[in-house]
Amino acid sequence: MQISINANRCEPSPMRKFHPYAVEAEKQGKKIYHLNIGQPDLPTPQAYFDAVRSFDRKTLAYAESPGMPVLIDAVRGYYHELGVDLEPNDVLITTGGSEALLMTCLSILDPYTEVIIPEPYYPNYTTFVHAAGGVIRALPTNPWEGYRYAKRERIESLITKNTRAILITNPGNPTGVVLDQAEMRMITDIAKEHNLYLICDEVYREFCYDDKFGVPTMAHFRDIDENLVIIDSASKRFSACGARVGCVVTRNKELQAALLKFCQSRLSVATIDQIGAAALYSVGQDFFRQSKEEYRRRRNTVVSRLRQIPGVVVEEPMGAFYLMASLPVDDTDKFQYWLLEHFDYQGDTVMFAPGAPFYETPGKGINEVRIAYVLKQADLERAMDVLAAGISEYQRQVMHLTPAAADEPSKSR
Amino acid sequence: MQISINANRCEPSPMRKFHPYAVEAEKQGKKIYHLNIGQPDLPTPQAYFDAVRSFDRKTLAYAESPGMPVLIDAVRGYYHELGVDLEPNDVLITTGGSEALLMTCLSILDPYTEVIIPEPYYPNYTTFVHAAGGVIRALPTNPWEGYRYAKRERIESLITKNTRAILITNPGNPTGVVLDQAEMRMITDIAKEHNLYLICDEVYREFCYDDKFGVPTMAHFRDIDENLVIIDSASKRFSACGARVGCVVTRNKELQAALLKFCQSRLSVATIDQIGAAALYSVGQDFFRQSKEEYRRRRNTVVSRLRQIPGVVVEEPMGAFYLMASLPVDDTDKFQYWLLEHFDYQGDTVMFAPGAPFYETPGKGINEVRIAYVLKQADLERAMDVLAAGISEYQRQVMHLTPAAADEPSKSR
Repeated sequence: MQISINANRCEPSPMRKFHPYAVEAEKQGKKIYHLNIGQPDLPTPQAYFDAVRSFDRKTLAYAESPGMPVLIDAVRGYYHELGVDLEPNDVLITTGGSEALLMTCLSILDPYTEVIIPEPYYPNYTTFVHAAGGVIRALPTNPWEGYRYAKRERIESLITKNTRAILITNPGNPTGVVLDQAEMRMITDIAKEHNLYLICDEVYREFCYDDKFGVPTMAHFRDIDENLVIIDSASKRFSACGARVGCVVTRNKELQAALLKFCQSRLSVATIDQIGAAALYSVGQDFFRQSKEEYRRRRNTVVSRLRQIPGVVVEEPMGAFYLMASLPVDDTDKFQYWLLEHFDYQGDTVMFAPGAPFYETPGKGINEVRIAYVLKQADLERAMDVLAAGISEYQRQVMHLTPAAADEPSKSR
Repeated sequence: MQISINANRCEPSPMRKFHPYAVEAEKQGKKIYHLNIGQPDLPTPQAYFDAVRSFDRKTLAYAESPGMPVLIDAVRGYYHELGVDLEPNDVLITTGGSEALLMTCLSILDPYTEVIIPEPYYPNYTTFVHAAGGVIRALPTNPWEGYRYAKRERIESLITKNTRAILITNPGNPTGVVLDQAEMRMITDIAKEHNLYLICDEVYREFCYDDKFGVPTMAHFRDIDENLVIIDSASKRFSACGARVGCVVTRNKELQAALLKFCQSRLSVATIDQIGAAALYSVGQDFFRQSKEEYRRRRNTVVSRLRQIPGVVVEEPMGAFYLMASLPVDDTDKFQYWLLEHFDYQGDTVMFAPGAPFYETPGKGINEVRIAYVLKQADLERAMDVLAAGISEYQRQVMHLTPAAADEPSKSR
């Protein structure tokens, strides 16, 4: 039986392969600090659960295909606070930002058309682009430049007659890079001049740790209404990942019509989750401020502790709750297996996301990791101790970097 | 800005165009009986709401990408009752049957590959097949044969070197056709002999009104494990359409791996809805029996009343909660506009789904309608009175079929 070419071009989750090893490590009594997934530990605002519990209709019916009016209005109200006025049709509610991305790719990409994405990037972008038959053109960045990608010449050098879109995450996952106003303007100019869609995944918009960025959104650039597609989600903003409620925001009427066809084909987004999400938009600025402060402290902890580890290269990320770092090991994938199988520090070990799957370019990211700083302060500090000890021990045992290593048998897998 | 070829090949919802006319009719004070959508009015079992309300975790986190173990186990338990034993990996939880269909099409179809579907069929199939670049080959049926499609020669005559799959809905939407055992066997034989996927959308499995059918599922035919993909959903079974919880069931390991990539890319299905859906699977046989009895009564009412209207052709549907009927009017699309704009029967009018969008073949279904019998008995009876009066008046005013028509000015739009 044949599997489709596009499905074969997609990769299984790069984290999944570690799962059996993590289970085994836990069986052996090891405690694992999870820096590998972007699942925030902050409580979801009570407003969500209150709204869900107060649902009192007898029949749980389909919602409207473009989204429930109460949620569309809540989203519009939120954007209005950002200084962005949207018509109801400019917002289509989706099952998470994920569905917004898949529908956008299906709506604008033909087979062999190209999307420019700065690498390292969120690995699931690959599946969305490949599902539509598209091709990713990676815009290279480097750890020693802090992964900044907004360079006009570099971007323009990748544009071909097949290019349909530029896709950016701002603030960035996995890098934490945030664009400044001049960079945003420059990228919108490129999109406009070359008649490209600009897909801007802004789900981490509230998490910018330098006040000069404010709450950034491309939606302020009204001269690119035809080009701009914003991917948005309640997941990170409200620590409500399991609600699966996001949206796509665009003022391009033709694109709205194409997206709406896909919305209609899947009938609706979960009714109760939409009601809960609508209530979330009433929690107000205090919630955002507190979340941001918490993540800022966590970022500071992780960055300062990483910088104390000899050989680690890390720039302070300006947004989101991830960072990429280069570790002084030969291969972070191999290092992760070793941490689970052959290492513990006083009974503890640690998981991160190895860097290579965040890159399109083969061979890149092998020394890098993505760290999600989504744990409590004390847990993060402990995780950094474990990581430091792990690096040192791995260098000695597996890489034979210290004279002492010669006395010990290698435990390389 | 370019829209993708595949998005352009999809159609907007054929029902949507009537929406402004329905709003206008209601503004004029008309009451509309909705026979146009498959939204059951039966109450969702309380178990769903109880489970949702008892959710007490502080953070609404992502669920597992293949589905929550509690729900996968509930689904397996339900299949076990049907005599079908499934491994946990054989079930992937999806956001409704809709996502199960989209992921299946993306996993098995390449551009220009073909899917054989008996027509009339559920119009959203078009979007799922076209999203993957596929082509629908319609297997023709006729009202006077009761829309039965299980004819070996007709199916085999459509198979080409590009055919990848046969997609059937059993019990059928919109026709209510249910396959008997010999027909099921014959179709599985064709799939096996020609090395085709058999995608069997069984979301109406519980709604079979002749006891000889039992609760039909293709999963009993173990010799087609490699070919079979079952699309399933809690929506109709439990009158819980707004939960958006379905699943895809297959024992084909390669296909499981392909589907899992798409599951991972969208992270998870809504957490609270999965917990609610898991609880639904405990409601037991009484709930199914009562639902089926209610729909059987409704079917009997609609069929017997339709048969009293001169010129209507209708076969008694054996399953689901729809029927297709041929009406004695020139064009059911035009008739629907007229019912909303120019007609009322003591203040009431009626909506159905015009037949043409259920057909791939141009020109077919113009005299047909799909009727969803999802209203209470009294409302259905009233809707039939309104429809009968509407047909008679439309024949007189617009089609000039009676001598009296000459005295009246035409109000045709």
